[in-house]
Amino acid sequence: MGEIDDAPAERRLSTRRLDVRRFRGGELGRIEDPDLVATEEPFEIRLGYSRHDGSRAEEPVSVTMRTPGHDEDLAVGFLFTEGIIRSGGDVQQVVARGQRAADGLMNVVRVDLAPGVPVDFKRLERNFYITSSCGVCGKASIDSVAVQGQFDLRAVDFRMTGEALGRLPAALKTQQAVFEQTGGLHASGLFDADGTIGSLREDVGRHNALDKLIGHALLRGQVPLGGHGVIVSGRASFELMQKAKMAGVPLVAAVGAPSSLAVELAREFGITLVGFLKADRFNVYSRPDRIV
Amino acid sequence: MGEIDDAPAERRLSTRRLDVRRFRGGELGRIEDPDLVATEEPFEIRLGYSRHDGSRAEEPVSVTMRTPGHDEDLAVGFLFTEGIIRSGGDVQQVVARGQRAADGLMNVVRVDLAPGVPVDFKRLERNFYITSSCGVCGKASIDSVAVQGQFDLRAVDFRMTGEALGRLPAALKTQQAVFEQTGGLHASGLFDADGTIGSLREDVGRHNALDKLIGHALLRGQVPLGGHGVIVSGRASFELMQKAKMAGVPLVAAVGAPSSLAVELAREFGITLVGFLKADRFNVYSRPDRIV
Repeated sequence: MGEIDDAPAERRLSTRRLDVRRFRGGELGRIEDPDLVATEEPFEIRLGYSRHDGSRAEEPVSVTMRTPGHDEDLAVGFLFTEGIIRSGGDVQQVVARGQRAADGLMNVVRVDLAPGVPVDFKRLERNFYITSSCGVCGKASIDSVAVQGQFDLRAVDFRMTGEALGRLPAALKTQQAVFEQTGGLHASGLFDADGTIGSLREDVGRHNALDKLIGHALLRGQVPLGGHGVIVSGRASFELMQKAKMAGVPLVAAVGAPSSLAVELAREFGITLVGFLKADRFNVYSRPDRIV
Repeated sequence: MGEIDDAPAERRLSTRRLDVRRFRGGELGRIEDPDLVATEEPFEIRLGYSRHDGSRAEEPVSVTMRTPGHDEDLAVGFLFTEGIIRSGGDVQQVVARGQRAADGLMNVVRVDLAPGVPVDFKRLERNFYITSSCGVCGKASIDSVAVQGQFDLRAVDFRMTGEALGRLPAALKTQQAVFEQTGGLHASGLFDADGTIGSLREDVGRHNALDKLIGHALLRGQVPLGGHGVIVSGRASFELMQKAKMAGVPLVAAVGAPSSLAVELAREFGITLVGFLKADRFNVYSRPDRIV
């Protein structure tokens, strides 16, 4: 759980102290109290690459809203789950520019591709207007999503007990320190078959939280994540299943409800989808054979 | 509360029955039980308009994921909160094509502009790649957002008691029948100063739920909504504040937490932002003078 150790530093970025007025006991307080709020700021991801003549160039890929902290994980995870990079080896370096635009808001990270890594400019162009919170744009059908992804999850041999699954919500809550303070952040956690959460990422956007988690794993050489499952603090949408597929995750467990399309994709991809996960009860929407 | 009356018909569209396996009492059930799941499907919004020579043309504006039901409200609300139409009078008719693409999934709605209504093609082009769940794309700064919107909310005289606010969560829950069944839908409700919820819209996407609510109000000639507040079942993000501003709503109450940027925008726009709304307690992040 080394990732958890860096939480205090990230936490300073991911929350902001604001003065609020509290209504309690039938009255609005006369003075302002400080309150911790989850930070939400614009974020630009740029791609650095080599031209045919060997000179370097860069292009903007995406502008999204995100919670600061683990920006490099987010940039790499986003590029990977969108199919723009195909492995951690495609990344030469990640440059957190720390720059802010004239309005004082924009944060920029540039991901430099290793020499010789090809760039699919059509995919890049399509993605410029996409954020991690709307991966569906331009993907009009399930089919166009389903062809993406290098990993076939249907044959992945991953098994865990219902008891181990049931321990996950409490473990997520224990480790999700920021949510406890602000109530405003989604969390994604990566766990093994014993139900131990090895890493955790948080963001105001649920898709960002998962991209951060996947980017972190990719940079550590853990992808495909065939020996792991992912727990998400909220609901399971279409996009989370797509990202799990891209990263080779055979089991997704949601504390909240799944959508119909999340279930359809899980069934098509061969992902075990668990919803309404509580300590002693949950629903299994696909591939129940992995719960033993 | 006439809007609530049409809920049964919409509910058939907005949920789907799927077979699931339930883990209870330490065991995974051997047989599949039916479970209601919130529907999530792709949706395309197209804009119909008149060319200079009077002939008709149409352009795609957005592809988004949404929960079927109140599609016309969603299309009109999206076009309005994105600044593509400026009033209900700009809309001649809304054509629900009921078409589905070859893959059997895409639903299409075309909004026809009234003759003579100008189209801002630059804005349209930018929006083609935007969905309602990522309104920030291309808007790199608060400033570019803040200039949008026809209504100045700072001087709007809207007041309600803390007690009336406290009644809203229970009222929302009572009326939000689909959420109760699936746990998978966000809700937005429009209320008056007495705390009566007059209309309610639901969607897997929180932004869609608010667009549906605003589109419905726009088609009924209620915008600007200076005499109303909006309650949202989840968290308050940047985008919800932007949409509230566009519709002239002076008070936004969230059952969940606000993000830092939501608070900043509320303060800049002059919107009263309430968070963590419960029956007997809540926080006020901006313009507390409207709570009496």
